[in-house]
Amino acid sequence: MSAGSFTVRPIGFVRSPVVEPVDEGWGEVESRIELLPEYRPGLRGLDQFSHVLVVGWLHQADFDPARHLLRRPRGRDDMPLVGIFAQRAKDRPNPFGITVAAIVRAEEKGLVVRGLDAIDGTPILDLKPYFPDFDAAAKARLPEWVARLMQGYFDGRV
Amino acid sequence: MSAGSFTVRPIGFVRSPVVEPVDEGWGEVESRIELLPEYRPGLRGLDQFSHVLVVGWLHQADFDPARHLLRRPRGRDDMPLVGIFAQRAKDRPNPFGITVAAIVRAEEKGLVVRGLDAIDGTPILDLKPYFPDFDAAAKARLPEWVARLMQGYFDGRV
Repeated sequence: MSAGSFTVRPIGFVRSPVVEPVDEGWGEVESRIELLPEYRPGLRGLDQFSHVLVVGWLHQADFDPARHLLRRPRGRDDMPLVGIFAQRAKDRPNPFGITVAAIVRAEEKGLVVRGLDAIDGTPILDLKPYFPDFDAAAKARLPEWVARLMQGYFDGRV
Repeated sequence: MSAGSFTVRPIGFVRSPVVEPVDEGWGEVESRIELLPEYRPGLRGLDQFSHVLVVGWLHQADFDPARHLLRRPRGRDDMPLVGIFAQRAKDRPNPFGITVAAIVRAEEKGLVVRGLDAIDGTPILDLKPYFPDFDAAAKARLPEWVARLMQGYFDGRV
C-alpha cells in the first residue's frame, strides 16, 4: 500500500451564467459543458440518457486539514460538527464536485444541462451516463440536518 | 480556457475479497475502505447515512483514444457503438469509478461497505455522503441496452 499521486486533466469546462459560488437556486440553472475537441466524439449516445453524472474540479477549493477535516456545514451554528467525508463541502482533500444534472440537449461542442451547481469556468474531469444501478439508493437514510442545509439549494430561482 | 492538469492523492484503499475485475455479482460483496490515518477524523458522522458515494481510481485502466473513445460496451456485438462518456467502462480519460455503496458500519480505520464494485487495492480519492438532491434522478430515462448490459452485475452471488 503506497500513497503516491495521480494526474488528472480536464476534458472540458463549464459555461454558466453563474460566476460566483452561491448556495441556492441551482435547480433551474442551464449551463453548457464545452468539451475539448479531442474528446467530443466520446459524447456519442449520451443524448439517449435523461441525466448525466458530472465530475468537476472545484478549482476555488483550498483544503486545510486544521479547518476543513472537521467542520460545521457552511459554518452554520445549527449544523453538527462532522467530517469532510460526511458532507459535500468543496474544501476536500481531492476537490471533486459530483452532481447529477438533466441533459437538455447535445450540441456540437458538448452538452447543455440543467441543475449543475458549478460556476463558470469549472474544469470538468469526467461525464458518466446516469445508471440507477450505480447511482441510485432506493431507500436512503440521512440525518435530519441535511434537509435543513439543502433547503433552497436546488430550488428554481434563475 | 487552458487545459492544464491537477494532482490527486489517495485518501485510502479498498480491501476486498475480489482481486480480479469481474462483471457480475457485486451486489452482495462486502469490502473495507481503509483510510490513511491522517484522513480518518474526516469520517465523523458518515455513519448517520445509509449510503456513501465512493470515488475510486481505476488503477488498471489504460485509456487509448483509438480504442476507447468510441466502443461497444464490454466489446459485445449486441451493444451499440457509443462514446466513452455514454458508458461506465473503466478505460476513460480520467479513470474514476463512481458507485453508491451501502454503509454496513464504520470502523476505526474506515468503513465496511456492501455493493462496491472495486477490486482489492483500488485507491480511493473521495467519499461523499449520499444526498438524493445531488445524486438521485427521480425519473431517469435510459436506452434499452443498459438493462441488458447490467444484468447480473450487482446481483448477489458472493
